[in-house]
Amino acid sequence: MTTYSIAVIPGDGIGNEVVPEAQRVLEAASRIGGFSFDWTHYDWSCERFAKTGAMMPADGLDQIRGKDSIFLGAVGFPGVPDHVSLWGLLIPIRRSFQQYVNLRPVKLLAGVESPLKGREAGSIDFYVVRENNEGEYSSIGGRLYEGLEDELVMQQSIFTRRGCDRVMRYAFELAKGRKQHVTSATKSNGISHTMPYWDERFAAISTEYPGFTTDQYHIDILTAHFVRNPDWFDVVVASNLFGDILSDLGPAVVGSIGIAPGGNINPEKDYPSMFEPVHGSAPDIAGKGVANPIGQIWSGAMMLRHLGEEATASAIEQAIEDVLARRDSLTRDLGGTAGTRELTDAIIGALPSSAA
Amino acid sequence: MTTYSIAVIPGDGIGNEVVPEAQRVLEAASRIGGFSFDWTHYDWSCERFAKTGAMMPADGLDQIRGKDSIFLGAVGFPGVPDHVSLWGLLIPIRRSFQQYVNLRPVKLLAGVESPLKGREAGSIDFYVVRENNEGEYSSIGGRLYEGLEDELVMQQSIFTRRGCDRVMRYAFELAKGRKQHVTSATKSNGISHTMPYWDERFAAISTEYPGFTTDQYHIDILTAHFVRNPDWFDVVVASNLFGDILSDLGPAVVGSIGIAPGGNINPEKDYPSMFEPVHGSAPDIAGKGVANPIGQIWSGAMMLRHLGEEATASAIEQAIEDVLARRDSLTRDLGGTAGTRELTDAIIGALPSSAA
Ligand SMILES: CC(C)[C@H](C(=O)O)[C@@H](O)C(=O)O
Ligand SMILES: CC(C)[C@H](C(=O)O)[C@@H](O)C(=O)O
Repeated sequence: MTTYSIAVIPGDGIGNEVVPEAQRVLEAASRIGGFSFDWTHYDWSCERFAKTGAMMPADGLDQIRGKDSIFLGAVGFPGVPDHVSLWGLLIPIRRSFQQYVNLRPVKLLAGVESPLKGREAGSIDFYVVRENNEGEYSSIGGRLYEGLEDELVMQQSIFTRRGCDRVMRYAFELAKGRKQHVTSATKSNGISHTMPYWDERFAAISTEYPGFTTDQYHIDILTAHFVRNPDWFDVVVASNLFGDILSDLGPAVVGSIGIAPGGNINPEKDYPSMFEPVHGSAPDIAGKGVANPIGQIWSGAMMLRHLGEEATASAIEQAIEDVLARRDSLTRDLGGTAGTRELTDAIIGALPSSAA
Repeated sequence: MTTYSIAVIPGDGIGNEVVPEAQRVLEAASRIGGFSFDWTHYDWSCERFAKTGAMMPADGLDQIRGKDSIFLGAVGFPGVPDHVSLWGLLIPIRRSFQQYVNLRPVKLLAGVESPLKGREAGSIDFYVVRENNEGEYSSIGGRLYEGLEDELVMQQSIFTRRGCDRVMRYAFELAKGRKQHVTSATKSNGISHTMPYWDERFAAISTEYPGFTTDQYHIDILTAHFVRNPDWFDVVVASNLFGDILSDLGPAVVGSIGIAPGGNINPEKDYPSMFEPVHGSAPDIAGKGVANPIGQIWSGAMMLRHLGEEATASAIEQAIEDVLARRDSLTRDLGGTAGTRELTDAIIGALPSSAA
């Protein structure tokens, strides 16, 4: 029997509630595929930062480097600046482990209320593929004339050919099993060095995929199309910043921002990938047992797909969709009255009987 | 009688149809305020670029420097790359004339269909104030190892204290006559030099406006709030790139992207400001007399407000709202059958009788 060694990092707030529940679902579902898990728990978090001054130990990356995958809850705690949790945990993991793809599905599900008029379940179904390692998120920059009227700050964006090409190829490969349509997010009319280069590489990589359709939109009008024409998209590929924006806007448009999953993926599997829900640590509802576990469970399904357990991944996703569609045991955010545990139980109950 | 000297640049495509119609409305409305116009026409456009190799003559800026205002249609023509029209016309005007504010209203109007469920006319009403001169739109950057596998490109963003402070103060001044609530768009958790500085300046400028409420959101979740909670906002201040995104997304959310106006404003009036609709040159419908003139007319109203003609500006806006609300003589994009001229006539007819 295959055993997957997973680093579990619940993080802060509701991360500590939804991660164990998602582990229960993954354990139950593992019977479908006939595999098992070896979980190792890490307390890396803003809470740890508050106590020790570091989000993770100095040798943290080495501790998890050999794992098959990383299962993360959410980090963030009032009083700990956002950039601490990001640059002290998320970004080092994303970059050191070459998780250069950030993948997020955008899907309008039955039973989930979208803010948009007249859209039917299934009519919106696409992926945002975000470059996750370089681009606009760079630590290069600085300040001149600090404290004076003439003060100015600079920030360097860096796009490499290798960085662009590999994420674009991932997007095309993903589209292969879908509608073979790839949309690129750009802003080459305003941002005059990096974005024209992004377009150039998109054109070059497109030629490797004859028969695929492609288009590109400037990020400003693309956000407008996400609202007006979300049914146009199949796979959307975007830089780090634009992908960050689109992968929050997409879930917002289909009403799933509280339940959307995400993967930070190293496609070559040279290093562990990391799966985490889109939502944050929600300190306001933490500790009450009311947090919605679906984002975490769905992230677990994405993790299984990455590990090669496609059937089990799909079974979990189907169970989530079934429970949502019949509006069974939903949490408050979805208009129900159930708690985290009851909703998890309902999803476990909706798994195929081989997992019961 | 005051006479305003206006540089008229219809540009390309439907710009040539909607600009003369908007001039008719402005002429009719000028009787309300008792002022007149001295229009000077310039053929600066992509069409001109195709013929002469330049969007405008070498001394173009000097030709219009002394005008009271610039009234622009739209530039863009198939075959002429976007960055040509931008860096050959729009950006030099925006920067040389220190039009450091890009102002766009986002307002849900009666008679206009929003893609969002359950929102009533008037329930969404805010401004996006975009920094229009610096930030992420910089021409500084370049390429290393051109043509090789190691190729990379860099782009520098530059934020100055003066640039941040002046646009933020403009936002607070605008909020003064409104709900005194200012929202800042940031991404200081990911973009680690310029955006934390933006936050620092926002905090500093906020202290100059006691009694105002402020908040700030990272751009990713802010785009989600534009869709989920557009009623939260009063004045949103943002960098060049983030403001560009938000000022397309905002109009998309209220269904007005085809009719939204915009101003490129030099608040000190040291130089002429420029007013232009959000929509483009729409080559697909150009020359057919069916283009919607409202964005251009509304931009004209914004121009009058900037010139100090508040009463006349409001009268034009009211006429637009009345015609939309009673769905009188609307163009195709709004579900009607009227042409550009008929819709313009309806708006002129809806002006107070002093302008008839
Ligand atoms: C034409 C384009 C580059 C421009 C911009 O990004 O500034 C436009 O989107 C706008 O908002 O005026
Ligand atoms: C925490 C934050 C900096 C992060 C990002 O921007 O990458 C988050 O928004 C995400 O999308 O994972």
